[in-house]
Amino acid sequence: MAIARYGVKSHLSLAVVHGNTAYLSGHIARGGTTVAEQTTDILEQIDEQLAEVGSDRSKLLSANIWLTDIGTFSEMNEVWLGWIGELDPPARATVEANLAVPNLLVEISAVAAID
Amino acid sequence: MAIARYGVKSHLSLAVVHGNTAYLSGHIARGGTTVAEQTTDILEQIDEQLAEVGSDRSKLLSANIWLTDIGTFSEMNEVWLGWIGELDPPARATVEANLAVPNLLVEISAVAAID
Amino acid sequence: MAIARYGVKSHLSLAVVHGNTAYLSGHIARGGTTVAEQTTDILEQIDEQLAEVGSDRSKLLSANIWLTDIGTFSEMNEVWLGWIGELDPPARATVEANLAVPNLLVEISAVAAID
Repeated sequence: MAIARYGVKSHLSLAVVHGNTAYLSGHIARGGTTVAEQTTDILEQIDEQLAEVGSDRSKLLSANIWLTDIGTFSEMNEVWLGWIGELDPPARATVEANLAVPNLLVEISAVAAID
Repeated sequence: MAIARYGVKSHLSLAVVHGNTAYLSGHIARGGTTVAEQTTDILEQIDEQLAEVGSDRSKLLSANIWLTDIGTFSEMNEVWLGWIGELDPPARATVEANLAVPNLLVEISAVAAID
Repeated sequence: MAIARYGVKSHLSLAVVHGNTAYLSGHIARGGTTVAEQTTDILEQIDEQLAEVGSDRSKLLSANIWLTDIGTFSEMNEVWLGWIGELDPPARATVEANLAVPNLLVEISAVAAID
């Protein structure tokens, strides 16, 4: 099975496709000072990334969400619920963790189906 | 390949099956005040979830375990060892993390084979 | 699809192969007192593990990296960049977490393609 990489940086690829499965890197916000704003931005990026690999949010299989303050769970989740809408959502795990840069409040990685 | 979802909530599905692979959400205890009790309860839920998707604990491929206090590693692991028994265990990573609700002490997600 | 396990311990297998996908446990250093030393050792182990399952670092699909001090991100990443070299890297997420043993500074799990 071929491996295809998207958004290739020196240290990571934003997405890697193997067969019918896409692995997305931990995505972080390009801006935003609240968890809601950062989550909105990350989910926009994930939409774009999924489109690029030939998938979409309806084909998400699993997601990992890290929050620097688990007390912001509801704030993140509200944005998530608006995004996932009426779709059947992926498997998910959300835990607290400090992230690579101090002003980051949330990071999301995912696995998605291509077809 | 079809995607099948089980235990569908608004924000996550407890399990998502894609082809021959099942992705299980981070499972948390329904009760129990010790790590041993919570781990026992989570592994019961995972057994039930794996049965529902047509898998079982002998077909686990990988697991992620989060402990709110990494000092409880041995307490969690003792329950895990009793559960996995003589089976060849999955790949696993165990790290410390605060979880979504304060009284939660352990959370486990997994990937399993369907056949 | 057959499941093959490698480096089987009582509580985990260092690698589990299902179809064309290999799941690697969270790998920790066998020695080293700095993040750079420990990362070097872990990546050596991952090379050996990938070879054993019939893969190699060019076929990594995703990796999770945990650092006990996220302030060591650059130190870890420098070793990683030297290791991944000119290859297209996997998807990756790096977060902070305390690990199972106090002197551990870094842990890395991965998913890789077999072919």
